[in-house]
Amino acid sequence: MTRWPIPQPMQTALDAARKAAQAGEVPVGAVIVKDGEIIAVAANATRVPPDPTGHAEIRAIRLAAQALDDDRLTDCDLYVTLEPCAMCAGAIAHARVARLYYGASDPKGGGVEHGARVFEQEQCMHAPEVYTGLGEAEAAELLRDFFRERR
Amino acid sequence: MTRWPIPQPMQTALDAARKAAQAGEVPVGAVIVKDGEIIAVAANATRVPPDPTGHAEIRAIRLAAQALDDDRLTDCDLYVTLEPCAMCAGAIAHARVARLYYGASDPKGGGVEHGARVFEQEQCMHAPEVYTGLGEAEAAELLRDFFRERR
Repeated sequence: MTRWPIPQPMQTALDAARKAAQAGEVPVGAVIVKDGEIIAVAANATRVPPDPTGHAEIRAIRLAAQALDDDRLTDCDLYVTLEPCAMCAGAIAHARVARLYYGASDPKGGGVEHGARVFEQEQCMHAPEVYTGLGEAEAAELLRDFFRERR
Repeated sequence: MTRWPIPQPMQTALDAARKAAQAGEVPVGAVIVKDGEIIAVAANATRVPPDPTGHAEIRAIRLAAQALDDDRLTDCDLYVTLEPCAMCAGAIAHARVARLYYGASDPKGGGVEHGARVFEQEQCMHAPEVYTGLGEAEAAELLRDFFRERR
């Protein structure tokens, strides 16, 4: 099967996820791009320092808001290796991210195409365009390997 | 009408919300209690420094996790003046907060009894006990006054 090449920001998000796994964190990475330039890279980091909100998307959004000195990430793209959970989907909406690209779908914890379906609710003030499946195989394999080693 | 007295943590959350309004932030406050002791107090702060994730609940959860040096807020109660949005409800679930008390209901942005109904989804790994209406009138009045002045 021929596949589309994985775009550079998603490659960078996958690299961040790999580093998270080496640090014992669940391997999920996120990248924010504005005007073709990467302005934030983050991975999951919930354990050191302890932060239950430390998902890759939340951390990347906070970094990008600081970098732009703006709490609205207008015209920004967010690339993340895994379908965002309800918390992160909510953050993406609050941040007014224009486009969301995610790799693997997450039936067990996702909040975009599963469960809370945050962007489809009338309480959601802003819904990004959503593109899925880029880097899906790589993202899913990282997670499978991580949890297999810990079983 | 006789009402239940507002418990001290919710009074403290209302005070934090009042201070947020004075700083030009949407007046929502949150307090986390463990073993009868307040371990975190926070208010909405999304503008300075810019942080679209800077809701009172997220900020209180991060402070509490640091204070306890644990990413799980087991046996903790969270008091917040307004119904949490989907982002904050997701964070409350990730943090394993035991009990959630909130003041005013939020039909326009809430994610607990409205819209995403995060705790009712099978993707939600932990749902707190939820108690509503404590300090509702005070919390709603703060928000009404804030938005009226800005119209």
